[in-house]
Amino acid sequence: MSNNRRASDELVRVIPIGGLGEIGKNMMLIEYVSGRETDAIIIDAGIMFPENDMLGVDYIIPDFRAVQDKFDNVRGVIITHGHEDHTGAIAHVMEHINAPVYATPLTRGLIEVKLKSAHLLDQTTLVTIQAGESVRLGAFTIEFFHVCHSIPDCVGLGITTPLGLMVHTGDFKFDHTPVDGWPTDFGKLAEFSQRGVLALFADSTNSDRAGWTPSESVIDPAFDQVFSQAKGRIIVATFASLISRIQQVANATMRHGRKIVVTGYSMVENTRMARELGYLDIPDDMLIDMNTARQLPNDEIVIMTTGSQGEPSAGLGRLSQGRHYHLEIEPLDTVVISAHPIPGNEELVSRTINKLIQRGAEVIWDPVMPVHVSGHASREELKLLINMIRPTFFVPVHGELRHLHMHAKLAMTLGIPEENIAVVENGTILEFTGESMSVGDRIPGGYVFVDGSGVGDVGPEVLRDREILGRHGFVIVSLTLDGRSNQLIGKPELISRGFEYLRESRELLNDARDAVAEVVYSNGHHSARSLRREVEKKLDRFFYKETKRRPMVFAFINEV
Amino acid sequence: MSNNRRASDELVRVIPIGGLGEIGKNMMLIEYVSGRETDAIIIDAGIMFPENDMLGVDYIIPDFRAVQDKFDNVRGVIITHGHEDHTGAIAHVMEHINAPVYATPLTRGLIEVKLKSAHLLDQTTLVTIQAGESVRLGAFTIEFFHVCHSIPDCVGLGITTPLGLMVHTGDFKFDHTPVDGWPTDFGKLAEFSQRGVLALFADSTNSDRAGWTPSESVIDPAFDQVFSQAKGRIIVATFASLISRIQQVANATMRHGRKIVVTGYSMVENTRMARELGYLDIPDDMLIDMNTARQLPNDEIVIMTTGSQGEPSAGLGRLSQGRHYHLEIEPLDTVVISAHPIPGNEELVSRTINKLIQRGAEVIWDPVMPVHVSGHASREELKLLINMIRPTFFVPVHGELRHLHMHAKLAMTLGIPEENIAVVENGTILEFTGESMSVGDRIPGGYVFVDGSGVGDVGPEVLRDREILGRHGFVIVSLTLDGRSNQLIGKPELISRGFEYLRESRELLNDARDAVAEVVYSNGHHSARSLRREVEKKLDRFFYKETKRRPMVFAFINEV
Repeated sequence: MSNNRRASDELVRVIPIGGLGEIGKNMMLIEYVSGRETDAIIIDAGIMFPENDMLGVDYIIPDFRAVQDKFDNVRGVIITHGHEDHTGAIAHVMEHINAPVYATPLTRGLIEVKLKSAHLLDQTTLVTIQAGESVRLGAFTIEFFHVCHSIPDCVGLGITTPLGLMVHTGDFKFDHTPVDGWPTDFGKLAEFSQRGVLALFADSTNSDRAGWTPSESVIDPAFDQVFSQAKGRIIVATFASLISRIQQVANATMRHGRKIVVTGYSMVENTRMARELGYLDIPDDMLIDMNTARQLPNDEIVIMTTGSQGEPSAGLGRLSQGRHYHLEIEPLDTVVISAHPIPGNEELVSRTINKLIQRGAEVIWDPVMPVHVSGHASREELKLLINMIRPTFFVPVHGELRHLHMHAKLAMTLGIPEENIAVVENGTILEFTGESMSVGDRIPGGYVFVDGSGVGDVGPEVLRDREILGRHGFVIVSLTLDGRSNQLIGKPELISRGFEYLRESRELLNDARDAVAEVVYSNGHHSARSLRREVEKKLDRFFYKETKRRPMVFAFINEV
Repeated sequence: MSNNRRASDELVRVIPIGGLGEIGKNMMLIEYVSGRETDAIIIDAGIMFPENDMLGVDYIIPDFRAVQDKFDNVRGVIITHGHEDHTGAIAHVMEHINAPVYATPLTRGLIEVKLKSAHLLDQTTLVTIQAGESVRLGAFTIEFFHVCHSIPDCVGLGITTPLGLMVHTGDFKFDHTPVDGWPTDFGKLAEFSQRGVLALFADSTNSDRAGWTPSESVIDPAFDQVFSQAKGRIIVATFASLISRIQQVANATMRHGRKIVVTGYSMVENTRMARELGYLDIPDDMLIDMNTARQLPNDEIVIMTTGSQGEPSAGLGRLSQGRHYHLEIEPLDTVVISAHPIPGNEELVSRTINKLIQRGAEVIWDPVMPVHVSGHASREELKLLINMIRPTFFVPVHGELRHLHMHAKLAMTLGIPEENIAVVENGTILEFTGESMSVGDRIPGGYVFVDGSGVGDVGPEVLRDREILGRHGFVIVSLTLDGRSNQLIGKPELISRGFEYLRESRELLNDARDAVAEVVYSNGHHSARSLRREVEKKLDRFFYKETKRRPMVFAFINEV
């Protein structure tokens, strides 16, 4: 590396950004700092999905507020591939950054849709790159290399910094027989290794899985078996972005003389774009719409749908509940769930399967037949990667803390010294010189929840209230008081939701009214405010005693 | 079978009872009906755990209301083993039944605790039975045979009815080297087979797992490795009822010269009882309390705790959040999670692991080392069972619908004719004659939710309200109107919870007040009721337009 500055002036900082959850997956900032200049790049701009107890949250964006002062130095935003957890926050990020976005053609196509709906497409510069190319972004030179994953056109990054070469795998696996015939670029990895790699940032998602992740091509024989046994329609559910799976289903459809219907807005859009860009090869006459399908015998139809995660409002979820707009499960239907549950969705997926069986469908999912494989490298692949690259420093990323730890231990068994491995959480700054890596401060940050049109306005307090309301509901009492005599006028009015039907619990309702009246009369001289508090306290204790539940209680006092 | 009645008069009915979820697991009623008599038995009285979206529900009991008219005919209630999903509803069931409860000593001990806290122990007849014994209950003769599972003292049932022999496995696995040295009673199964089995009811929980469930003894070497590497305290989390695991931990503790502390009310109680009854062999001097432990060096301490499912309020959950009463994670602690997540708990368990790692603990769970095995038979065991018994009719039970289907298909591959297999849901009546099995009507029934002290008073409507409140919160507006002039007196008062902080959204609050005022003034002549509806509608639309959320909106109108 040509380098005429004093080493002590120079630093490369790497900051994974996000809340708890997967580390460095959604967004990462790398900056080069010297006496004279500061250059930064951003890798990925994705979203997290809310956990089961983050009630009402639609999605979560990386909390980049603490690094926003660095955004003026950003020379480029690089998106490694087209999945939501790497692209979904692009509009939120590009609102604040004036630099080009670099992506491969398919990834660019998927990003454009998002920027367009946020009215940011016109003001964003998008640069199409191809694996094998390189771009210069300030002090950084980025070499894009092809990696296999579960969507085509993924890249990893060779990032030449003034202090050394860093390799970032993106999401990857070593599939020797991928659907698109384009394996991970082993040659490039070997070449990096020969140049000497200062630091490796590698995908840890499957660091708890032994062996080698099966190739996508193992799915084809399973599909063939399903297709040859199916007596009626075949309905295949998968992710809308799993372009290679759509190709595999289309191939099986062709082999078995059927026609294919693609349903669901995002899947239809992705299919259209991927065909236009040449990432999907489906002949025109094989792709039909639902109305045409209705004219065909059932055993000539394949329907592709979303909802493989059991989401109640997506295609498969609606089918399982009998609430689909255009479709209803029929007894000879075969439903293939070509996906694994994302952690946290296991219960929803099981329930969906049970309901589909209840409606008479034959359901095929992973334990029944291998109709899905993971898109992430397992332990033997991770070993191969580390031994091909032999980096000086190793930083496991893209996984929960527990995955990072397992990945770190795996690296130790390969001889990477413990002190050269950094397991860090989102927000922790890693500082590299040409010779050292150190763990720096942690920037503040947490979750930025997106709920409806609100970004960041729902915080932990609101979520806590939602949890209480969701568990116990609430009761409101409204009472009118004669201001002079402090006597109740009429009966206190009670309404409740999520607690229990007070209409059906007349006794409880009457006793609650009595309890309120008791407070009013035993508490002769008081302000409306103190009476309100007293009434709320009394009812809270009353309901807990009677039901062992704690609904939120609110009192309204009207003095007349 | 001696049988002097006309076959057409006689019938054995089998009714699995419960909601959606695992079939026949929590409760099953079997009745024999002839012209002259009706006898019934009940197998198990357990609870279901609520799914993630059943907000606020503590647990679910089988909905037995539709069979309650048969309770007078019940000659005995048989509990196959001591797990919550087979015992947890015993008090709810025994409130309505006047017949003895039959259980092995350990199971009886666990049931007694439940009956006692429900003040039903005195009025319930408990009969201790041992595997190998048999009892006559009306027209039925029940032979109890030992099966292995993940708690000691489990039994399966040979049920001789006037129409033939039925075999019910209970929860089981074929462990050749169980911790207590007592394998499943193969001899009895072979003997049943020789007598001829009319129907087999078999555990389907693991019908989606290939191969043979590993023996509990494979855990010992894993524990030895963990214990020999641990530099500080070892904290082992498992189910409070997993007595054999407690024994294995105690054995490892002894082998490695440590002492053991058992924490958590239910685990302490179970340990005490199991030791008294001779199911746990832990020398007195090995079992210490937390205060004694504090005097010892860390590397001589083993702590057993609950919370292996990531429950935030159980031992391990509290430790992971730094909210435990007596303990705090220290950097050299090793935490062993000796359990698998129950479906639906995966996310909670992962989060707990991440938080423990964050606090500096070394965490060992299944992918890291084999520190847990399942208590249920896998596919090869299920095949062996069917081929040992060779029943005329086969009924997969104890699993979700998808497990039952896989189990049914497995039975077909072994030559059981499809028409002799019944995959049914809870509530469906199966009718047996000596020669036939037919699927009868379905009794009405669903979930009976227990929330606080309420049993069945929380229904689907309340849960739906809880879901809305949990997702979007609510807003209440209270306004005072001059009854003659229909003019607002003062400003409308708004409060909200779970929506957003109106205090911090002054503009939204003011606009909402304006919207309310607009309705009042544009709506000159109206009843309070119609005004209330108008205000609620207006605010609903206003908030959706502004935030794309739909909090519940309630208006109170006070006319003065």
